[in-house]
Amino acid sequence: MAHSSADRFDPRTQPIAVFDSGVGGLTVLHELLVRLPREDFVYLGDTARFPYGQREAAEIERFAAEIAEELLRRRAKLLVVACNSATSAALPSLCARMRQTTLGIDVLGVVRPEALRAVAATRSGRIGLLATPTTVSSGAYERAVSAVDPHVELHAVPCPTLASIIQDGEQFDEQAVATVRAVCEPLRLARVDTVILGCTHYPLISPMLQRTLGPDVTLVSSGAALARQVEHALSTRELGWPISDRSRVDGEGEYRFLCTGDVEAFRDLGTRFLQMPLGEVEHVELARVEAVA
Amino acid sequence: MAHSSADRFDPRTQPIAVFDSGVGGLTVLHELLVRLPREDFVYLGDTARFPYGQREAAEIERFAAEIAEELLRRRAKLLVVACNSATSAALPSLCARMRQTTLGIDVLGVVRPEALRAVAATRSGRIGLLATPTTVSSGAYERAVSAVDPHVELHAVPCPTLASIIQDGEQFDEQAVATVRAVCEPLRLARVDTVILGCTHYPLISPMLQRTLGPDVTLVSSGAALARQVEHALSTRELGWPISDRSRVDGEGEYRFLCTGDVEAFRDLGTRFLQMPLGEVEHVELARVEAVA
Repeated sequence: MAHSSADRFDPRTQPIAVFDSGVGGLTVLHELLVRLPREDFVYLGDTARFPYGQREAAEIERFAAEIAEELLRRRAKLLVVACNSATSAALPSLCARMRQTTLGIDVLGVVRPEALRAVAATRSGRIGLLATPTTVSSGAYERAVSAVDPHVELHAVPCPTLASIIQDGEQFDEQAVATVRAVCEPLRLARVDTVILGCTHYPLISPMLQRTLGPDVTLVSSGAALARQVEHALSTRELGWPISDRSRVDGEGEYRFLCTGDVEAFRDLGTRFLQMPLGEVEHVELARVEAVA
Repeated sequence: MAHSSADRFDPRTQPIAVFDSGVGGLTVLHELLVRLPREDFVYLGDTARFPYGQREAAEIERFAAEIAEELLRRRAKLLVVACNSATSAALPSLCARMRQTTLGIDVLGVVRPEALRAVAATRSGRIGLLATPTTVSSGAYERAVSAVDPHVELHAVPCPTLASIIQDGEQFDEQAVATVRAVCEPLRLARVDTVILGCTHYPLISPMLQRTLGPDVTLVSSGAALARQVEHALSTRELGWPISDRSRVDGEGEYRFLCTGDVEAFRDLGTRFLQMPLGEVEHVELARVEAVA
């Protein structure tokens, strides 16, 4: 059967899709861009429905399914959920849904990769967690850490204001220092040697956190942990960008952005989270999918 | 002899002084604040006479001596030169001058620490250098690398516009990506496995550089390299903040800023370079010292 080159479909040259309810997941994309420079990426921020934090799980499942549909239409070869709320609420149903697609693509989420890395990093067996109150009370990190090693203690600290301080660009104000001190205090008292940054916003203040917790504490972010797992997935599925492609030997892949809300607002906020040039942002309307039973 | 507590002079509780011609050295201070959270710091930016790049060595020697006088008056226990031009032009004379003071304080500069770390990191023996044209043509890094290991090749790339792109806050524009690609190209062709960021501005774009150079290349910044050497100096001179001081067990040291130019301009630009809250900035007039013969 003859194919023109335009028809030829090589899943390895398709983009990796990353999504979040907003811009926080851009810190995850940042790590992916640094660690996997040859790959193409497409990022979707569901900013019109941000934040997911206080929504019902069934609703988040439906949102995640709608986003996945859109990203599959754009021929994503791998789906990364760079959002704590979406991972907690929708990862199992999303995995099940994706297994039913013809491509059978993998879905990777936050939480488990960080738990694994934190358990691998700790020597004292005492790990700290900084996260939003919703994430802490979901118990997702506790279950994930305990699944990896039931003998490790997790000291979770809910941080009600930290994400919004960062979102509003106020992370270098004195108020931010006071907030960082307050949330780190219980972790210092518990003498943890490893701290999970359980919110995608927190890498933007990791130097402040490192200073307050001390240089001997290992910080584990969602981005760094997920990037490693994405590398593994590409490798075992043989989905990494073909190294025989000369055009990528001397250059980087492409990345672009979709958002459901205001494009300019996304661009303004996004650069600060990505810490790289943002380029093109496209507005997208998501097709409504069947609610999950 | 009886002393009141106000008279008691403990050199360990004095600040570490850091200076630069401008705000670039704040990336060095950033690393010091993260790695040595218990110490106090005072930073002087000689912004009124920025940049030093095109000045005569004798003039820079005099500027450095004036700055050192000011910082000694503020009882610095260690002097860090976080400026490539000042290190190249004035480190030897500054060291000689400081040995003559009653305290005999140590002076640490950039260049040598990065050379040491880069040689320690390389496996292939091929190291890259990104720096301003003045720094490259000074040959300072070449000499420093060769002094540590004469069998290591240094591939130096002069970057005429990179520092000013970052200084102007344009590091996330498409133009910056093109510039980064252009300066990294010779280093990729030379297949270096380690790259020295030979300008204190460059850590602000290290993710872009890492992406362009590839994840297997080790980046060595002045800040990270110097911070390690400052730790060593404090340790061997027994000048580290006393661990018996309870007030510092649960909190961080203080840091403050002096600048010879406009205070507001320093504050605006400084936060972006420090990536931490900047706090108080004090204007300072430097006393003119004798020119070095």
